[in-house]
Amino acid sequence: MGPRSVAVIGATEKPGKVGNAIMQNYIDVGFQGRVYPVNINAEGKIMGFDAYKSILDIKKEIDLAVISVPAEVVPKVLAECGKAKAKGVVIVTSGFAEVGREDLQDRIVSISKKYHMPVIGPNCLGVMDTRARNDTLFLPTSKIDRPKIGGVSFVSQSGSVGSSLLDLISGEGFGLARFISYGNAAVVDEVDLLNYLAHDKETKVIIYYMEGAKRGREFVDVAKTATKLKPVVILKGGMTPSGASAAHSHTASLAGSTQAYEAVFRQFGFVEARTLEDCLYFAKIFDTQPLTTGNRIAVLTNGGGHGVLATDALYNNGLIMPELSKENQKRLRKVMPGIVNIRLPLDIGGDADASRFAAALDALSDDKNVDAIMAITLFQTPGADESVADAIVNHAAKKLKPIVAVSTGSTYTKSHVSLMENGGVPVYESPDVAAKALAALVNYSRYRKGAA
Amino acid sequence: MGPRSVAVIGATEKPGKVGNAIMQNYIDVGFQGRVYPVNINAEGKIMGFDAYKSILDIKKEIDLAVISVPAEVVPKVLAECGKAKAKGVVIVTSGFAEVGREDLQDRIVSISKKYHMPVIGPNCLGVMDTRARNDTLFLPTSKIDRPKIGGVSFVSQSGSVGSSLLDLISGEGFGLARFISYGNAAVVDEVDLLNYLAHDKETKVIIYYMEGAKRGREFVDVAKTATKLKPVVILKGGMTPSGASAAHSHTASLAGSTQAYEAVFRQFGFVEARTLEDCLYFAKIFDTQPLTTGNRIAVLTNGGGHGVLATDALYNNGLIMPELSKENQKRLRKVMPGIVNIRLPLDIGGDADASRFAAALDALSDDKNVDAIMAITLFQTPGADESVADAIVNHAAKKLKPIVAVSTGSTYTKSHVSLMENGGVPVYESPDVAAKALAALVNYSRYRKGAA
Repeated sequence: MGPRSVAVIGATEKPGKVGNAIMQNYIDVGFQGRVYPVNINAEGKIMGFDAYKSILDIKKEIDLAVISVPAEVVPKVLAECGKAKAKGVVIVTSGFAEVGREDLQDRIVSISKKYHMPVIGPNCLGVMDTRARNDTLFLPTSKIDRPKIGGVSFVSQSGSVGSSLLDLISGEGFGLARFISYGNAAVVDEVDLLNYLAHDKETKVIIYYMEGAKRGREFVDVAKTATKLKPVVILKGGMTPSGASAAHSHTASLAGSTQAYEAVFRQFGFVEARTLEDCLYFAKIFDTQPLTTGNRIAVLTNGGGHGVLATDALYNNGLIMPELSKENQKRLRKVMPGIVNIRLPLDIGGDADASRFAAALDALSDDKNVDAIMAITLFQTPGADESVADAIVNHAAKKLKPIVAVSTGSTYTKSHVSLMENGGVPVYESPDVAAKALAALVNYSRYRKGAA
Repeated sequence: MGPRSVAVIGATEKPGKVGNAIMQNYIDVGFQGRVYPVNINAEGKIMGFDAYKSILDIKKEIDLAVISVPAEVVPKVLAECGKAKAKGVVIVTSGFAEVGREDLQDRIVSISKKYHMPVIGPNCLGVMDTRARNDTLFLPTSKIDRPKIGGVSFVSQSGSVGSSLLDLISGEGFGLARFISYGNAAVVDEVDLLNYLAHDKETKVIIYYMEGAKRGREFVDVAKTATKLKPVVILKGGMTPSGASAAHSHTASLAGSTQAYEAVFRQFGFVEARTLEDCLYFAKIFDTQPLTTGNRIAVLTNGGGHGVLATDALYNNGLIMPELSKENQKRLRKVMPGIVNIRLPLDIGGDADASRFAAALDALSDDKNVDAIMAITLFQTPGADESVADAIVNHAAKKLKPIVAVSTGSTYTKSHVSLMENGGVPVYESPDVAAKALAALVNYSRYRKGAA
């Protein structure tokens, strides 16, 4: 459950100020709880809400305090949060360890400890909880779209990677549970966050962008449990020698050796993303599809060239295109037009309609040699329309075997991609990307089976 | 110059027929020349145009005949095209060598030879010429968007890869010169097409999807010349053992060994795409940017995490992040705020505005240690708005050094991406993709320099 009362410390009506953007955002996203603006100079109201000079003046239970006052003032207002028994604090303000002010940051740590009060930040965007509509971001909704409610949670050590990937996620078919940008990690760090999300019921899949773990050993310990509970997709910045140097300059992260990280990721069942896009590709297959029983993928297509590219892509990703069982070959021969060659990739022709797609999907799902399906549905073809998208969605709803779709194209195609994604089918733009996502699912499924 | 008179043989008012779709398409795309519908059963008009029973009845000069009659009838009407002195023919009809009817296909070849008449197809989508608005596609504009006019030409051995990638291209910032889907290549084949586009003045960049070259040696000979004139981006289906088998089943292509193809691609200066998306990524950098002088890339960013990811991506793609020259370090130190660390990746801060971007770009372009620029412009940040997009466009217009932009995001970001792409700047969604495109530019530039 999200916070029901939030104190915004540093709230102001002055446009362009972070404290103004945070207030405006609470209004824009429709937060359902109480908002208390706090500002040392407050008189009367701020943006329509009763304002307070100090959090101590509110005299109500405060679930969350969001601090955006200047760095020098942060220790004072943080101590007041402690006295007011705020249950949690997000410090958005920058100007701490990242600019050499370890002294100021140390005081934050002491105050947090003294009051047993969890603190996220400083130097971060804060948190977003789509269900509670709690959203401490100071980036306006006009510049960054907010994702719909869903099962993917996303943690980012970098504000820019966090905000831009969050924005990208909002354009995808899947929804978000929580977003956390934790900045300097003075108190709450990567270990706490991974542990929290591992046990969070609203989180089905975790995406993690990190540049370095301060408590590496503890992180691995928590990860061992987390990856047995749910997929943890990790994108690690600074995996190359020059990247590690850039990461050190950015978040003072000691990046460690690439080999060491890769070994850890593999050993403990992380799903390793190598690009920003991988995070999205992987999140959406894990969010919607069951684990696989193996790496044998049946490719179904209404375009021959895509079938060839898919075959290459499976091979390049360590996946196998099996032979169909004898029974299923006979069954498909009966229902498919004579011109269709009964073998994988199963090219059912440019004139394939919904019923042909449905018959093929049923046979492939029944086949004991098939672990998952890649259904290439090109909507440029004469046979493909909304009913084909429906056929894919209806088949996927049976949850017989993992299925992904591939549709390449623009306006007409994209409207059908939305239909399929809203129906719970992960859709990819190319066979290459789909194969990459299937390989992530296969590898993670294998880890879970071994770890069970 | 495109055709000014087209005979559509098999034209009909019956919806759902290919001959109907082709006619409708000539109307929809606004072809400026004369259209003559031909149908053995024609009486009066077809879709508002005077109709003819045979091309021989038209008695006018015919620049192009498009044939969509049943396969068995094709030799007869093709011979009539020869007698009518049609300057070129596209045979859309399928049912030839791809289904074992080599006999029918051989007759096409003989007739073409007899009349010295170039024939594209059979079993293809045909051709599109954006300037002449000649467009033989039987896929309606409601299902597949048409790209704007530009300098990229795209040839596809596969109809499905052709139509879907064409559709994707229409959503990109760059425009198209010609599209050619050549199907079975009975007469005009990959050698003729590459040779034609290599010398075509409207074509700046070639994208080629192929599954196999029938005349491999001649293809290489033509390629040697072509790649010295312009970039040829090639995506080869069937590069893996299983993919080669699928390609053979699809287009009867003998795919050859992966190693052999890769060696040829490298030796003769092809730009090898490994995915459908690569074709777009590479086409847009070649379409807009000059060749590079080397592989030293300056990364400029308004987000630290993206700077780290870009540094990794450069390394992974064989590119180098140089040290800035001493003079430029001093120059940048003077114009940048104290908090900005003067080194690459140059993180100019989340509050960076257009003037800070412009000052940084000027310095980086002047630096003798820099061959090209990756400008990461995240529009989620408070400082970034339309004026930042303008600054990038204005700088790129000076054509000092190759430049690409990176912007990750949804609605607000995408509108600014359009501004930049319409202004001639290739924009990528992630540093990874941008680095891949820069590496393609660097490698091709190196080839051209060596081949000069």
